[in-house]
Amino acid sequence: MALIVQKFGGTSVGTTDRIRNVAQRVARQHAEGDQLVIVVSAMSGETNRLLGLAKDLSRSPDPRELDVIASTGEQVTIGLLSIALQELGVKAKSYTGAQVRILTDSAFTKARILSIDEARMRADLDAGHVVVVAGFQGVDSAGNITTLGRGGSDTTGVALAAALRADECQIFTDVDGVYTTDPRIVPEARRLDTITFEEMLELASLGSKVLQIRSVEFAGKYRVKLRVLSSFEDSGNGTLITYEEDETMEQAIISGIAFNRDEAKITVMGVPDRPGIAYHILGPIADSNIDVDMIVQNVGESGHTDFSFTVNRGEYQKAINVLRGEIGKGFDARDIIGDNRAAKVSVVGIGMRSHVGIAAKMFETLAHEGINIQMISTSEIKISVVIDEKYLELAVRVLHRAFELDQPQAAA
Amino acid sequence: MALIVQKFGGTSVGTTDRIRNVAQRVARQHAEGDQLVIVVSAMSGETNRLLGLAKDLSRSPDPRELDVIASTGEQVTIGLLSIALQELGVKAKSYTGAQVRILTDSAFTKARILSIDEARMRADLDAGHVVVVAGFQGVDSAGNITTLGRGGSDTTGVALAAALRADECQIFTDVDGVYTTDPRIVPEARRLDTITFEEMLELASLGSKVLQIRSVEFAGKYRVKLRVLSSFEDSGNGTLITYEEDETMEQAIISGIAFNRDEAKITVMGVPDRPGIAYHILGPIADSNIDVDMIVQNVGESGHTDFSFTVNRGEYQKAINVLRGEIGKGFDARDIIGDNRAAKVSVVGIGMRSHVGIAAKMFETLAHEGINIQMISTSEIKISVVIDEKYLELAVRVLHRAFELDQPQAAA
Repeated sequence: MALIVQKFGGTSVGTTDRIRNVAQRVARQHAEGDQLVIVVSAMSGETNRLLGLAKDLSRSPDPRELDVIASTGEQVTIGLLSIALQELGVKAKSYTGAQVRILTDSAFTKARILSIDEARMRADLDAGHVVVVAGFQGVDSAGNITTLGRGGSDTTGVALAAALRADECQIFTDVDGVYTTDPRIVPEARRLDTITFEEMLELASLGSKVLQIRSVEFAGKYRVKLRVLSSFEDSGNGTLITYEEDETMEQAIISGIAFNRDEAKITVMGVPDRPGIAYHILGPIADSNIDVDMIVQNVGESGHTDFSFTVNRGEYQKAINVLRGEIGKGFDARDIIGDNRAAKVSVVGIGMRSHVGIAAKMFETLAHEGINIQMISTSEIKISVVIDEKYLELAVRVLHRAFELDQPQAAA
Repeated sequence: MALIVQKFGGTSVGTTDRIRNVAQRVARQHAEGDQLVIVVSAMSGETNRLLGLAKDLSRSPDPRELDVIASTGEQVTIGLLSIALQELGVKAKSYTGAQVRILTDSAFTKARILSIDEARMRADLDAGHVVVVAGFQGVDSAGNITTLGRGGSDTTGVALAAALRADECQIFTDVDGVYTTDPRIVPEARRLDTITFEEMLELASLGSKVLQIRSVEFAGKYRVKLRVLSSFEDSGNGTLITYEEDETMEQAIISGIAFNRDEAKITVMGVPDRPGIAYHILGPIADSNIDVDMIVQNVGESGHTDFSFTVNRGEYQKAINVLRGEIGKGFDARDIIGDNRAAKVSVVGIGMRSHVGIAAKMFETLAHEGINIQMISTSEIKISVVIDEKYLELAVRVLHRAFELDQPQAAA
């Protein structure tokens, strides 16, 4: 008998018909003898409707009151799913975040979970109930309702799994797992049976929007086994996200190709090569609330160097203006150049830690197609390059083939 | 500085525009220095929408889960009204029933309030906040969300006023007070400045649907001053519902004419005039879940009597069938006759306790118009008659005039 936490997102519970489907799936699993805690989001569209009412009344509504309003979306779903389960003869009981006592800090609209009191859930589970918990919400120590921020239901699922020491946390979504790359670009893209947390973090932050990055971090911290599954298809075991150390099976060298289309590249030419120069350039950028992604600085010559970074394409012009303003104020640089039609392609794989030649193979593959590499950045399990956006799809396809990702998971 | 509890119903908060209007009204009162606790219902239509979702999933949904779902309606309104107040520069804070800790029993969907912890509200009021509380809901001792049943927001308002020992509980509704009778039938009907609780109870139960009967009983029990006001018009002080003993002003003899159109009259003829006969007739009726309204039994002659009662018109045939069935089982009665086109008209007034001749005047007025009285029933402050439905409007009009209800409140 396993204890499993299952999380269903807003699309999966978007109508009463879909809630009935979720109930049937849960009832089948319950009939197999598993203890189940189900976490649900608000019905799709509901959170936006509720926040829209608040925006009608104020341009900057009080976050405390926003949480009072927004948290009702999930509260409706837990009641409905419990009723649907009971209709199938399954004992079910719903809890809001405050009732389970998901204690958070008081950062309304983006609260962080501090602790969970699992006693009440445990008693219900032992009495044969399916426990249905509202995602995305909690309560602070003063009894105020809080929310974890949009999409925070994944985090609720992981946190409950951690508190209950569940065997697995299953995230049901509209994709049936994590793929080697986007199947819309590479039809041969293959679903991964397993992926490590580290790889998942790199893939998620690089644009594979399967799971909230925060829930993956949380799962890693508390060693919760996460599985991504489709809520619309019954077949398949999805993708299990594991700890490298836990794995008995051989690990693939490369697990996927991630990419991001909306990049812009900015290079500050001929800046003095001395301590503090990175801060002098990026400080004003951060002060303007512009997110910086890749940062590359080359070894300089004759006391000067070139400094490059990428930003989201929508913030390209703003970033350029900020830096020109700094030069106007006496900041020492020869020139600022940029390109807002850049794209980033990354090869991700925990196997590259112990394998040499991955970078060389990546660069060779791109060169073979005449694709110029504009910037390179590497981490332990990732190599990212910035290229001209027009080559993006080609680059992803040839790399997918070069690393044999269309083949069944290769042993390292 | 007064402490006032104000309750706004679903129509008053039915749109964000209307919520803004309520906020403006509250802000004006707050600016005059009053401490205010505001109780709100769900936006009109919302409770039905939520219960509709539940009914989609089950014909008889679990009451515990229904309360989890339905209570979100008021929770949305408290957040929205707080935001609207803050937008006007008024400090405001919202609370759900569970947060205020409106402790109830565990009778889901029809819970009764046991106690209210007023400390938190008091602290907020002293800090200059307007406190906004969700009506209709509470929490049981196990932490389950409960609701007081539909329309229970009036009761929440009265209960909070009692707990806080408020100076007044103001119920804002879509009428601007309690009238001497229905203005659609008697255009000269006049709004009463004051009415006693006892009269209000009689008027409410007789069909003047201004306030929930339960909230009036509650107010009477805890001596809460209740005032009915219009949420759409600014003019007028509405109607104050008072205790007879408190009143320094002279009391009118008759305060209003109530009526009920949907009556049906049933007479069991020639039943043995012996103890237990009322139970023999009404027992089977009650067992069939038929509500009985008026009951009249005359002095019998030669050991037999006639027994009459009224039921809601929709249950007339069912009641007749039940009684015929009893006769088939050997119940001793000569005949059962009935009339499903009856109506009830009542004259209500606390002054009739100390004034003779009210009944005579009522009967004379009806006789003068050729209206036959079929049944008569009296209480201390009410005289009700059953008449042919076709005379209903005529009867209400002539009685309204005969008791001079169109004149400014007459002294007793």
